[in-house]
This record gives sequence, C-alpha cells and structure tokens, in this order.
Amino acid sequence: MAVVGLGLIGGSLALAARRAKAVETVIGVDRDPAHREAAVRLGIADRAAEGLEALAEADLVVLAVPVTAIRRLLPVVAATVKGDALVTDVGSVKQPILIAGDVALPGGRFVAGHPIAGRERSGPEAADADLFAGATWIVTPSRHTDAGALEQVTAFWRGLGAVCTRMDAAWHDEIFAAVSHLPHLVAYALMDAVLGMERGPERLGFSAGGLRDFTRVAASSPEMWRDIFLMNREPILRVLAAYRDAVGRLEHAIREADGEALTGQLQRARTAREAILHATA
Amino acid sequence: MAVVGLGLIGGSLALAARRAKAVETVIGVDRDPAHREAAVRLGIADRAAEGLEALAEADLVVLAVPVTAIRRLLPVVAATVKGDALVTDVGSVKQPILIAGDVALPGGRFVAGHPIAGRERSGPEAADADLFAGATWIVTPSRHTDAGALEQVTAFWRGLGAVCTRMDAAWHDEIFAAVSHLPHLVAYALMDAVLGMERGPERLGFSAGGLRDFTRVAASSPEMWRDIFLMNREPILRVLAAYRDAVGRLEHAIREADGEALTGQLQRARTAREAILHATA
Repeated sequence: MAVVGLGLIGGSLALAARRAKAVETVIGVDRDPAHREAAVRLGIADRAAEGLEALAEADLVVLAVPVTAIRRLLPVVAATVKGDALVTDVGSVKQPILIAGDVALPGGRFVAGHPIAGRERSGPEAADADLFAGATWIVTPSRHTDAGALEQVTAFWRGLGAVCTRMDAAWHDEIFAAVSHLPHLVAYALMDAVLGMERGPERLGFSAGGLRDFTRVAASSPEMWRDIFLMNREPILRVLAAYRDAVGRLEHAIREADGEALTGQLQRARTAREAILHATA
Repeated sequence: MAVVGLGLIGGSLALAARRAKAVETVIGVDRDPAHREAAVRLGIADRAAEGLEALAEADLVVLAVPVTAIRRLLPVVAATVKGDALVTDVGSVKQPILIAGDVALPGGRFVAGHPIAGRERSGPEAADADLFAGATWIVTPSRHTDAGALEQVTAFWRGLGAVCTRMDAAWHDEIFAAVSHLPHLVAYALMDAVLGMERGPERLGFSAGGLRDFTRVAASSPEMWRDIFLMNREPILRVLAAYRDAVGRLEHAIREADGEALTGQLQRARTAREAILHATA
C-alpha cells in the first residue's frame, strides 16, 4: 500500500492497516520532510518518499491529501500506477473527485471514499490506529466503478474496523455541506466576528461556555477548509442560504420581541439535536 | 439562605454552600413540586416552599431563575425580605436586572452576579457541589450598591471556590452577547436550518464531526434562552450584525472562489481560538 499524505488520516489508516496485517509494506509519500521522517520513526510507513514515482510498485494507493490536491494528483497517479492497482481517497468532498478519478482511471479502478473521523490535532504525530474503529466510512461509487474494485476497497476499510456505507456522491456532498462544511463555516465566521469587535480579545477571554464549544471546529487546518469550501461551492452556497434564513427568523423574533416565535424555533433546534444524538448513540 | 429556583445553578450553589458550612439552613423555593421534592431528597435544601413568603426569614436570598423571572420577582422579594437581608442573583444578563434591583432595594442590598458555569443537563438532579470550583463569578455593582453588601456577597462566592471578578453591567452584557448569547443563537439557527432542509433528519444522522460539536449549546432550555435573547436584545442585535458581516465575507469569498481571502479569514479565526484556549487554560 502507498499512502499519499502522512497527516492524521493517512497516518492513522497506515497504522491501522499494519496492525490488522492487511498490507505487506506501507510506502509513505509526503512533500514535507518532517512528515516523512516522523512516519518512518513512528512505524506508520516502512519507507517514505517525496515523489509519486514511489507509487509504481503499489497494489493499493490511498490519497490522503486535501481535496484539491487529490483532484490535481489523480491524472499523475493514474499515469504512474500499475494497470491493476486500486486507487482510493479519503476526501470530504466526493462528486468532483469521483469525476476526476473516473476520467483518470477509465477502467473503474478508482473508488472514492470518505471516513467520518477526525480530530482536533493533525500531522503524523496525531496518527492513531484506533481512529476508524466503529467509524462510518462512506464509499461513493459511480456507474464506471469496477464492482470488484469496490468490493476490495470496502473489505479493506472494514478490516480497519470501519462500517462502510454506500452513497451517491452528489447526495454525499449535499449532506456534508449541511452537517460538516456549514458548521465549520459558521464557527470560523463566529470566531472572526468576535475577534474583530471592539476589545475582541478581551471578550474572548470570557468564552467558558458557548463560544468555547466552537473552538474544536475552528482548530482545523485553514488550507484544508479553504479547499473544501471552494470544491463544494454550490452545495455550500445552497445550505448557507437556508441557514441565513434561519438566522434572519431568529433575529426578526428578537427585534420584534416575539417570544412565541422564538420559543418555537429554539424548540425545533432541540428536536434536531435529539435526532443527532439518537443517530450517533 | 433562601434559593429561589432549584435548577442546576440554584441546586449546585446550595450544595456547595452547605458543604462549605457557609450557611446554617437552606430554604429552597420553586413552583415545581418535583423540584421541591428532589431538592429535599438530594440534600440541596433543608426545606422547600412554593411561595416567596418563605424568604421572610432569610439573611441571604439568591435568585436562580430565568432572567425575566428575576426581574419580575425583584419587587416582590424586596417587599418580603428583612430590612438587612442581602439579595443576589445568577442571571446571565445584568444591566436590566441591576436597574430593577436598585429600584426594588434602594438601600443598595442587591448585588448582581453571574457565575460562568453551566452544563448540558438541568434541574436539581444535575446539581453538583463542585460546579463553581475555580469558576469565574462576575459581580456587577452599580453606584448604588452598598460596599459592605458587595464585600459579603463576594466573600460568599469565594467560599464556594469561585474566582470573583468585578465588571460594569453594560460591558458584561456586551461581552456575553458576543461569547455566549450569539454562539447559542448561531447553534440554534444551524440546527433549525439543517432540520428544515430536504431530508433534514437523514442529514442529521451524519453529524459525527462539525454539527455534533454544536449540540451541547443547543441542548439548553428553550425558555431560558428565549428570555436571555429578549432581555439582552440590543447588544445581541449589535453582535449579530457583526456576525452577519463575517458570514457574508466568507460567502463572498466562496462565491468568487477567492482562495486568498478565504485563507485570511480562516486564519484569523484560528487566532481567536488560540486567545480563548490561552485565557481558559
């Protein structure tokens, strides 16, 4: 197996695959020399390389870099790997990557995927072989995806402890625009807004409740999220419009001192919370 | 001591005061018979009463009910208590309550306060004698507040393990509009928006990261938050305008695919996060 991108996800899946004895050898590919050094030192990879030439020997290639890098690398990866190699990814936007993968590997050997796992910390030092235990791993095949390739990749993720779910790529992007990308956008905007207020840093010092719960979300890499926001642009702009309406309704109720409308909206939000807790219990 | 409102905060401060032997007797006042029963059973109060007449014997009265109820009860409390009794509150909006308290108790025996502590759970069953250990307890005296009363109340909260900070009431309300009320409003709006989308409940099932971090915030009592939103209306509408601008800037950058502007705003949000973690470390 070759893993391109030795961050939290790439490093964790390499550790998990080695522990499960699902692979013989792990080749780590990363442009950052510190990541390469750490990956070998921490037992994430047997050896590490800077360039994609290292993929020529691999039977399975996992692209674990930011979403725009995945899309950009796919043609190069396709030109480098063996004809029967499987290629998969872990990006949190799927439709544009799936299209690029189907074009680059017309034999259907690209299987797009998205593990629902993440942590505040990043980089190979944060890698954890248990990250995917019980986690949902979404696979988004297209009509070009080879059935055998899909089966192999799914079995591989299952071997790391994940629960695989098949989903349409466009619907995946709509869902995650709402439940992941929008909340990150909202948290970033909130932090930025408070920081920019008069005596903003002083206010931030009193964030014991409320704002503090948003800090994990705003801790993620700005580059990674810039890429996600840009790549999932249309679905994000759609859910953002719905969100702006919801904020506008609350604002209107506050401005008009309409306690009944306020209570109604706050109670609906609680219903949503219960749906989340129920689903993830 | 008499505690009006036997919820999480009222129950916890009664438990903490009893453990610290800061009071001889705790009288709990609550309209809800289940709360009264639980408070006596759990050792929160020595006895519980339904009506405010029970305050006539108290040396210290703590109002631990939603903010609009605090404001509404203050004149009745003032008419009931002994002339030398101290009255304090724990509401998370201060300026309107302080004004009402100064009017109701013109001798300066009302000391407005706000402990920065809270939990997802509510009610007397959630009460915890350790809730205030190390917590910040903001007191917001006015120029009418009696210096001796302020000193006594401050010493009392310190005795429960809290760290007292003095602050101007109007500035308190501006700060908490930004770092507490706005984040709650945003979380409620987010939950409501996603729930209202096409196949909303199905989307909510995939909230492993992102939205899930907002669920604690949206768990709080709708009635309590309706009252806070209505009572701190002007500061909330001000910070909401700043927030809407921040969302608008992100939206514009996404629409225009302006990666540089996006990165800049996401990086500023990270700075805010660091300020928070630094302040609360």
